[in-house]
Amino acid sequence: MQGIIEKKKHGYSLTLDEWSWVVKGFVSGIIPDYQMSALLMAVCFQGMSREETIALTGEMMRSGECLDLGSVGRPTVDKHSTGGVGDKVSLALAPLAAAAGLAVPMVSGRGLGHTGGTLDKLASIPGFRTFLTPSQFVDQVTAIGCAIMGQSEGMAPADGKVYALRDVTATVDCIPLIAASIMSKKLAAGPSALVMDVKVGNGAFMRSIEDAERLAKILIEIGEGEGRAVSALLTSMEQPLGFAVGNALEVREIIDLLDGRGPDDLREITLGLAAEMMLLAGTERDLESAWATAELKLNNGDAKTKFAQMLEAQGGDPEVIEKPSLLALAPHVVEFNSPDDGYLICFDARLVGEIAVGLGAGRRKVDDDVDPSVGIVLAAKIGARVEKGQPIAFVHAADEIHANDALLDLRDAVELGSEPPSGNERLILKKIDKTGIKSWKVPDGKNGEHPAIS
Amino acid sequence: MQGIIEKKKHGYSLTLDEWSWVVKGFVSGIIPDYQMSALLMAVCFQGMSREETIALTGEMMRSGECLDLGSVGRPTVDKHSTGGVGDKVSLALAPLAAAAGLAVPMVSGRGLGHTGGTLDKLASIPGFRTFLTPSQFVDQVTAIGCAIMGQSEGMAPADGKVYALRDVTATVDCIPLIAASIMSKKLAAGPSALVMDVKVGNGAFMRSIEDAERLAKILIEIGEGEGRAVSALLTSMEQPLGFAVGNALEVREIIDLLDGRGPDDLREITLGLAAEMMLLAGTERDLESAWATAELKLNNGDAKTKFAQMLEAQGGDPEVIEKPSLLALAPHVVEFNSPDDGYLICFDARLVGEIAVGLGAGRRKVDDDVDPSVGIVLAAKIGARVEKGQPIAFVHAADEIHANDALLDLRDAVELGSEPPSGNERLILKKIDKTGIKSWKVPDGKNGEHPAIS
Repeated sequence: MQGIIEKKKHGYSLTLDEWSWVVKGFVSGIIPDYQMSALLMAVCFQGMSREETIALTGEMMRSGECLDLGSVGRPTVDKHSTGGVGDKVSLALAPLAAAAGLAVPMVSGRGLGHTGGTLDKLASIPGFRTFLTPSQFVDQVTAIGCAIMGQSEGMAPADGKVYALRDVTATVDCIPLIAASIMSKKLAAGPSALVMDVKVGNGAFMRSIEDAERLAKILIEIGEGEGRAVSALLTSMEQPLGFAVGNALEVREIIDLLDGRGPDDLREITLGLAAEMMLLAGTERDLESAWATAELKLNNGDAKTKFAQMLEAQGGDPEVIEKPSLLALAPHVVEFNSPDDGYLICFDARLVGEIAVGLGAGRRKVDDDVDPSVGIVLAAKIGARVEKGQPIAFVHAADEIHANDALLDLRDAVELGSEPPSGNERLILKKIDKTGIKSWKVPDGKNGEHPAIS
Repeated sequence: MQGIIEKKKHGYSLTLDEWSWVVKGFVSGIIPDYQMSALLMAVCFQGMSREETIALTGEMMRSGECLDLGSVGRPTVDKHSTGGVGDKVSLALAPLAAAAGLAVPMVSGRGLGHTGGTLDKLASIPGFRTFLTPSQFVDQVTAIGCAIMGQSEGMAPADGKVYALRDVTATVDCIPLIAASIMSKKLAAGPSALVMDVKVGNGAFMRSIEDAERLAKILIEIGEGEGRAVSALLTSMEQPLGFAVGNALEVREIIDLLDGRGPDDLREITLGLAAEMMLLAGTERDLESAWATAELKLNNGDAKTKFAQMLEAQGGDPEVIEKPSLLALAPHVVEFNSPDDGYLICFDARLVGEIAVGLGAGRRKVDDDVDPSVGIVLAAKIGARVEKGQPIAFVHAADEIHANDALLDLRDAVELGSEPPSGNERLILKKIDKTGIKSWKVPDGKNGEHPAIS
């Protein structure tokens, strides 16, 4: 192992056999944590080649059970987001894609840092089971076309062990390691195709377009290396997605979306990702027709029906769809009012995410409990004209102390200007697939642009 | 700890308090090995500032007992070599400096990699005790002016724990960590001044002059930071120092040197270091007079007498000095003959060191036994005219198999040319002290130059 660490430290690539030996040795306990953490730190500085990243991912994936979806009978396509604030897209997307004839075997995660997790959002639905056995999962995907569950202990256990070590040794922010971790889990669930939502901006783990492009390219290369079709949309994460941040609050917003309402940005990104899933699966020939199919399935209630079927199949109460008041509600709801007249030129996604964690919507430590009811609901987004004293957000808190802390912190999250933000910015910035980087334009007649942050 | 690793990973300096917390936490077990190894790897890539290196050294030094030499009554000066092949200088230098009126509290190490260790050489003297209690050590330095012992468990224990981890995580070759490790041990023994012999060349850990200068400067800065006077000689380590490589063989050569004979290069470097010790201690005013004093004490037998006193004080048999046949002798001594006529243009120090380790003169693993009798004795050095079949080295081996292996390997260690090496090279390349880098010239009328390797 010293020789392998030394080799990586001096910038050489490890072979497929060496990565195989490292992963097997680490999982079996032959390689101690202190050598693995030294190797991971060397990787943070020296990176990994395309071949190495594919090799590491494959080894971590095959360290556990890999599902066989051959019996599903429809194109299997998953979606993964690199994590944002208010990103509840998966909850609507999986049923929407299923309604459009795809099968979506989605393995999701819990909240991480300032970003929320799909599993925590689903867990706020009374009765919903986020853990299924492999056969329950495959059966459900076959029967109704979608299932969302947490990574089981038997899936990619090497990734779990590596991630736990990275988390405490400051080796998380390393693009090839991030890519290998994501892909080893997602590919173990067996989808033939995978659309990535790579978030970029101050509320995302990738702050720059360059890093987001690098990550997207590696994710695509890994997928292709394992014989799966992968494409990515780069999407902006400067302000929260939609209005709601917090688990039950986000489920309410998803119900709105499935009812044909919901915020414009959430709707746009959901339709865009659904369309890309169909294109990648080959069920639609161009973006325009894929978008139209997605829009139809959202507007005609098919996606909502599929969502109800998924809830029922996983033990959740489908009543919540017609009666969202069955979801948890925080006892203290207070307004955050605009400190001045002006235009909203910044609503800091990262800070809002951190404030929501502070309220109890996320975890500071891995075994913290999550309060499903708490969070922030924006009342205005970037570009809005606001007046002094007008509410621009609502804080949903467990008690007055938490509410007041959040109100204080929110002051730093918003910025007002005397002029509206100059220029616009697309929400979906570009598309990347194995042939390269492309521009991406919403095919709905609108220009897909939103006020830019200043 | 994650925050501290992250900080270093991104190239920031840690504060004195942070280093203190890290060292204390690591020694007490609060900081696990896997976090420490990640931090050490980050240090390998990002380095440490002067202040950080001083802070880390001070914390490691004060993690254990620091000797008080206030009662010694003479200037206390130590010497440290960064490790070479055939480097037996300390054995003669400590008594020589003591004979010149200094007190030498020398803490030495065992063999490391291809380089020998002073402790292993001394241990080949029947009865010699390489471990003393702190009070025995201080008493002996007070009484006779010199003592050489191994690092006790109570001295700089943090360094021992850090070094054991570096050894298995490929984080050894990092100049500030090397410097902190050396100085935490040497300064804990309490000398007011310290002369460094920084070896440079293919047989040394520092292969380039630039690295050797960097190391020397940091060593001096650490010493000055702890209120000690430190200077360094940069000396060439392209071929073994002297002729003998191997523990008892090197003791024989030291006895030759103390008898006024011995190889020119060994004599030059011993006198040079002794002179620098006197200058640093302030007992001599210029190099010429210091050199003359050292030469006098070597030639008039005072150094030899002091060596005998040191042996006796530490339980060793002083009889070996007049009767070196009391030292272990290997049963198989075979000639390595020149394969051709020509000039010796390379006698690879690193390979000779490794061959000696293979014979049993050093350790491959930390708990290997060392055979005091085995090694290599050169019969020619770079620049010599040799004829085909003429012995250019003698292999001292425990058995025929080892002897034959060494003979085979020695072929790669020597290179012959049809012309003598072009140009000369100094053995003592330069001097560095707190005021900067200086040229260094042997003040004995000779030019201090030796044939250069090609």
